Amino acid sequence: MSVARIAVVAGDGIGPEVVAQARKVLDAVLPGVEATEYDLGAARYHRTGEVLPESVLAELADHDAILLGAVGDPTVPPGVLERGLLLRLRFDFDQYVNLRPSRLWPGTTGPLASVKPGEIDLVVVREGTEGLYAGAGGALHRDTPAEVATEESLNTRHGVERVIRDAFARAGRRERRKVTLVHKTNVLTHAGSLWARAFAAVAAEHPDVETEYQHVDAAAMFLVTQPQRYDVVVTDNLFGDILTDIAAAVTGGIGLAASGSINPERTYPSMFEPVHGSAPDIAGQGLADPVAAVLSVSLLLDHLGHPEAAERVSNAVAAELASRTPGERGSTAEIGDRLVAHAAG
Amino acid sequence: MSVARIAVVAGDGIGPEVVAQARKVLDAVLPGVEATEYDLGAARYHRTGEVLPESVLAELADHDAILLGAVGDPTVPPGVLERGLLLRLRFDFDQYVNLRPSRLWPGTTGPLASVKPGEIDLVVVREGTEGLYAGAGGALHRDTPAEVATEESLNTRHGVERVIRDAFARAGRRERRKVTLVHKTNVLTHAGSLWARAFAAVAAEHPDVETEYQHVDAAAMFLVTQPQRYDVVVTDNLFGDILTDIAAAVTGGIGLAASGSINPERTYPSMFEPVHGSAPDIAGQGLADPVAAVLSVSLLLDHLGHPEAAERVSNAVAAELASRTPGERGSTAEIGDRLVAHAAG
Ligand SMILES: CC(C)[C@H](C(=O)O)[C@@H](O)C(=O)O
Ligand SMILES: CC(C)[C@H](C(=O)O)[C@@H](O)C(=O)O
Repeated sequence: MSVARIAVVAGDGIGPEVVAQARKVLDAVLPGVEATEYDLGAARYHRTGEVLPESVLAELADHDAILLGAVGDPTVPPGVLERGLLLRLRFDFDQYVNLRPSRLWPGTTGPLASVKPGEIDLVVVREGTEGLYAGAGGALHRDTPAEVATEESLNTRHGVERVIRDAFARAGRRERRKVTLVHKTNVLTHAGSLWARAFAAVAAEHPDVETEYQHVDAAAMFLVTQPQRYDVVVTDNLFGDILTDIAAAVTGGIGLAASGSINPERTYPSMFEPVHGSAPDIAGQGLADPVAAVLSVSLLLDHLGHPEAAERVSNAVAAELASRTPGERGSTAEIGDRLVAHAAG
Repeated sequence: MSVARIAVVAGDGIGPEVVAQARKVLDAVLPGVEATEYDLGAARYHRTGEVLPESVLAELADHDAILLGAVGDPTVPPGVLERGLLLRLRFDFDQYVNLRPSRLWPGTTGPLASVKPGEIDLVVVREGTEGLYAGAGGALHRDTPAEVATEESLNTRHGVERVIRDAFARAGRRERRKVTLVHKTNVLTHAGSLWARAFAAVAAEHPDVETEYQHVDAAAMFLVTQPQRYDVVVTDNLFGDILTDIAAAVTGGIGLAASGSINPERTYPSMFEPVHGSAPDIAGQGLADPVAAVLSVSLLLDHLGHPEAAERVSNAVAAELASRTPGERGSTAEIGDRLVAHAAG
């Protein structure tokens, strides 16, 4: 029997290159993983018109986790792969915890003058199955002066409370034990009230965890001026989309950012992927940095109950980044080899 | 006859202090302004329970512009002053252009290591009367496990096109002539499509203006990593709320940020205010920096057709900031006196 059955969606552009390194590292720290490759993304869409056939969705469901590289290219119309593949998986597999850690790793430099490596270590717990991502909306009188278009944010107590619970559980395992709720309760009063009341209820069960609330505009600002203040941030789907890119920006860019779309109960497979895209301009040249994909493997291992292997992987990344000479990091595969060596050693 | 009739809402906390300096500067560059004070904000709400009586709304309508300091304090429930006063004015007075310029002024330092003063000079044209701010939404089964809450983003071709037109007109008067549309067309496909089509239509009328499109998450990131790339940014109400706080953060904080809620046709009065809040913790001590309020006066003057006076005010601010010794800027009133001197000289 295999230790874990992983579906691998390498995808487009640099996706296959970084996923190859991620798999090398995964095999090194957890031998015996059974990996099955699935051909999904822009290339398949162009070739066959298919985004995610039902039969493939059913096969994916029969895995412990999904490792994804990157999908998309500029010629696919907006929304096709997003709604048809990425969001489809998040929603159908009930991946309600969209987990995005951000650290300013020793050895790297961020854009902020006053922040030193090691000082930023936060994780955004973004809701993944509700809000404005529900796909509820429509349009009337298209292409006339009377046109109206709507987008609806749907929020349930069920969906909001469970992601807040996850955030508090994660905070309880961290050193600072602090959770910041981010919303816009002063304008989005209905959803804001639901989030605030669910947050207060869960907070009452965790007297050992410090809490704070911030409006999303203030949080966006403080992520730039004082990112050190955050530990765990819990927020809705769209706010999380925006805030995690700011958090990535202040920690050296999305090139280093990993993410997990997690179903904590493991009823369905969770998906792990680097935040960066398929970067078609540098694809196939060994120029991509596989670090974000490898960090995604660390999140995957942690989710599957291998915290020690997960830590070996993140320690390998830490060692790699700390030892880099600017401008001389080597090819994608060379970085992968060094990461394997660090993880093994 | 007065040159302009201005309604002044000094508000709470540091509002009255910074507005006093703003009025000194206004009087210095445009003598003969008739100013009427209105007592609105947290203090009035606590005293009388009133937020914005109909009779006051009618009186405000009979002015050329409104100058606002800051309203609010932590004891007012979320949404009361926002919906009842600020958003009420934006919506009732059809202030559909929410204008927020951001400059990294010579003499100031921002948080970004690689950006030098003078290198950031952008303006966000945020839609002010639609989107998620419409107040459309509701909740069912409150305080039960079955609770659901919604927020609806309403977007009309009318509302979207007119603010895009304003952005292109402003870009045409600037040196770089570039407009960036920010939305999330890959997820918010209905509203995104409306925005993208309206943008393309207006762009076709302005072949001399360069255009680009970015998703809001990418724009949030690039505002941190490459804020220099932006000239005019046009976006929806909520995205604009978030992006303008990031733009303020990378240009030294909301302490320096001014804004206008503008009805370009002047059918109704426009409102000008510093972006900062009432800061009750430092109120009444002469510690507040009136620069953002004074910059709001510059926007007010420009809107009322006094571009030369507007420029004298912004030049005064530039001179003030360039001449500051860190930690020794003096009291609110002293700064105001220097600004008056700069504007007069
Ligand atoms: C590609 C897009 C659907 C996605 C999102 O908006 O969630 C991406 O921006 C992300 O953050 O994972
Ligand atoms: C106070 C609030 C209603 C307001 C907004 O969200 O527009 C503020 O954040 C702003 O940016 O002017």
